[in-house]
Amino acid sequence: MNPIFADLPTTVFEVMSALARETGAVNLGQGFPDDPGPADVRAKAAEAVVEGWNQYPPMMGLPELRRSIAAHYARWQGLDLDPDTEVMVTSGATEALAGALMALIEPGDEVVLFEPMYDAYLPLVRRAGGVPRFVTLTPPHFRLTEEALAAAFSPRTKVVLLNNPLNPSATIFPDEDLALLAGFCRRFDAVALCDEVWEHVVFDGRRHTPLMAFPGMRERTVKIGSAGKIFSLTGWKVGFVMAPPHLMRGLAKAHQFLTFTTPPNLQAAVAYGLAKDDAYYEGMRAAFARARDRFASGLTDLGFSVLPSAGTYFLNVDIAPLGEGDDVAFCERLVRRHGVAAIPVSAFYAHRPVRTIVRFCFAKRDDTLDRALERLGGLA
Amino acid sequence: MNPIFADLPTTVFEVMSALARETGAVNLGQGFPDDPGPADVRAKAAEAVVEGWNQYPPMMGLPELRRSIAAHYARWQGLDLDPDTEVMVTSGATEALAGALMALIEPGDEVVLFEPMYDAYLPLVRRAGGVPRFVTLTPPHFRLTEEALAAAFSPRTKVVLLNNPLNPSATIFPDEDLALLAGFCRRFDAVALCDEVWEHVVFDGRRHTPLMAFPGMRERTVKIGSAGKIFSLTGWKVGFVMAPPHLMRGLAKAHQFLTFTTPPNLQAAVAYGLAKDDAYYEGMRAAFARARDRFASGLTDLGFSVLPSAGTYFLNVDIAPLGEGDDVAFCERLVRRHGVAAIPVSAFYAHRPVRTIVRFCFAKRDDTLDRALERLGGLA
Ligand SMILES: CSCCC(=O)C(=O)O
Ligand SMILES: CSCCC(=O)C(=O)O
Repeated sequence: MNPIFADLPTTVFEVMSALARETGAVNLGQGFPDDPGPADVRAKAAEAVVEGWNQYPPMMGLPELRRSIAAHYARWQGLDLDPDTEVMVTSGATEALAGALMALIEPGDEVVLFEPMYDAYLPLVRRAGGVPRFVTLTPPHFRLTEEALAAAFSPRTKVVLLNNPLNPSATIFPDEDLALLAGFCRRFDAVALCDEVWEHVVFDGRRHTPLMAFPGMRERTVKIGSAGKIFSLTGWKVGFVMAPPHLMRGLAKAHQFLTFTTPPNLQAAVAYGLAKDDAYYEGMRAAFARARDRFASGLTDLGFSVLPSAGTYFLNVDIAPLGEGDDVAFCERLVRRHGVAAIPVSAFYAHRPVRTIVRFCFAKRDDTLDRALERLGGLA
Repeated sequence: MNPIFADLPTTVFEVMSALARETGAVNLGQGFPDDPGPADVRAKAAEAVVEGWNQYPPMMGLPELRRSIAAHYARWQGLDLDPDTEVMVTSGATEALAGALMALIEPGDEVVLFEPMYDAYLPLVRRAGGVPRFVTLTPPHFRLTEEALAAAFSPRTKVVLLNNPLNPSATIFPDEDLALLAGFCRRFDAVALCDEVWEHVVFDGRRHTPLMAFPGMRERTVKIGSAGKIFSLTGWKVGFVMAPPHLMRGLAKAHQFLTFTTPPNLQAAVAYGLAKDDAYYEGMRAAFARARDRFASGLTDLGFSVLPSAGTYFLNVDIAPLGEGDDVAFCERLVRRHGVAAIPVSAFYAHRPVRTIVRFCFAKRDDTLDRALERLGGLA
């Protein structure tokens, strides 16, 4: 067995969800809404599976979906993408990320990674043959700095992998930081692999700026998006990849070999859904922001120290003031004794973990959040 | 870019399907039925997407689907699989294969491959760091021999990758060959990775024997199956992996990093479908065998030299007697001038290609086959 994969534990998201199922805990661990998602989009998927085509769709994705994706990013982010050569549909953002790393990296290439990071990044980089160079971002602002980037980039840097908005910190990199990073990418001729799956889940009037929009980045950025996150249908596993044609050629091969295609009925429903107007996006954001506020104020009332959340489905709690052991021990106790599943943020670090932060998913119905709050009473 | 992927052409299946779409050719290239697939299974998927859970399912697959898969293979192949530790659901057989190679192979490990082979095998083996050792199988019987296996296996052999029934030859390895191969796997302590996606598509009363059923193979076999092939729904991309727990642990990590999960509504529909009784499987096989016979006799009447097809969606034609150039040139002319897409079998060879065989997919409605036959008239 290859030790890069075999030696790893099962992802904490799965472990916590399994524990929640077993113990009947309120699951605020793994990031998914407990809302059923837009009825019209689901109806479209149902219609397509009954009346439509269920054989292999084109490898790059249904043409109507690729056109919808290009139109979507033109409208929301001012990007000018050719649906025929610069847009690809994948079986979720995870496949998009895995494929991009397999396609872009040659053994020995350096890859700049930012901690905290999603727990799939590092094993995928290692399995692709990449050599990780870490930049550790520090609470509470998780900013990029000239010094940290200068220490991480080198002439061997091939790829820099950025998640923005950032899970688990629930922060958004300011344009100033993105401009700084873009400068390093240009200077070191690096490809930016941008996991922007949370781009629409931003609150309080904020807007997401794609790294691809910065000068000189159009030709060196691979942008990853997620229909699951746009439509609160995380199980659908329909991802998007946007890249210039000279990079897309290699990315398409990786897709060919990893999954080849993505279910056409879900693609058709996503194509339909992407045509939704501003009201949909505003409504989705407003609903999540309301849930965030309800849960944050509930936690604050209980005495927890709540960190701000500018985007994503998550908010973090600083457990240091509780003086009760590290985040892993705290989450173990929380799920087993108190019936609430959460994620220890140390799981997002490859080295130098922060061990005093616990992440909660607030993308839930009011009654789910209230039930969790009840169970958390007396703990802070 | 990593040259292993980037330097490859787009798969011939996609290229031919795109050409068929553009030119209006009858598409007998890429392997998919033009039947809509079982209405009840599709209705179940529709119901599940409207009324069911659309968030992340368990990473290993829905428990009811894993139980259905275990029951399915117990009934059809006498295998005794634990649904909790020996069965996993993937986003298609392609993901299952990619993940297995990533999980099993360490750089420098040797992998025994049989030509002709599906065009994803070799790039995936190479990208995983494996060193291919080829066994060339020869028409018309494509048998395994002691000599050929002895030349390919070595103390460095980690994996042997077998496709049975074999695409594109449409042959089934006799039990005698499988026993021979099992002996080599045991002797060299190799893992057998068995792409058995065509296991149910076998004709004329034949039955598929899984390599896993041979003595000593239970603990060293990874078996891959495909719901798309069982239900004639190739676009659904729901694959199965069966392996002993000590191998499954690594395979599960690869799945975690490649796609993580598979759409729950399609999983629910497949779980429902797998409970179908013998009549379904017999009916499916009989329908495909009828289509095979219709197309084969039509081709024979036109003067083509048709090779036998014991399983899969395919039959092959020997174009050597036509004396008209190689298979690639023949297929180019066929699709552009005569309006029929087919696959040149040389695409299934990494070296020593056979260049005189053309593959047709007969898994089509009568009128589709008849239209193709009309267009093929006068060519032989
Ligand atoms: C692999 S499930 C992860 C879902 C998610 O994005 C998260 O919880 O961080
Ligand atoms: C990648 S599409 C291939 C479908 C198939 O199995 C074939 O045509 O051989």
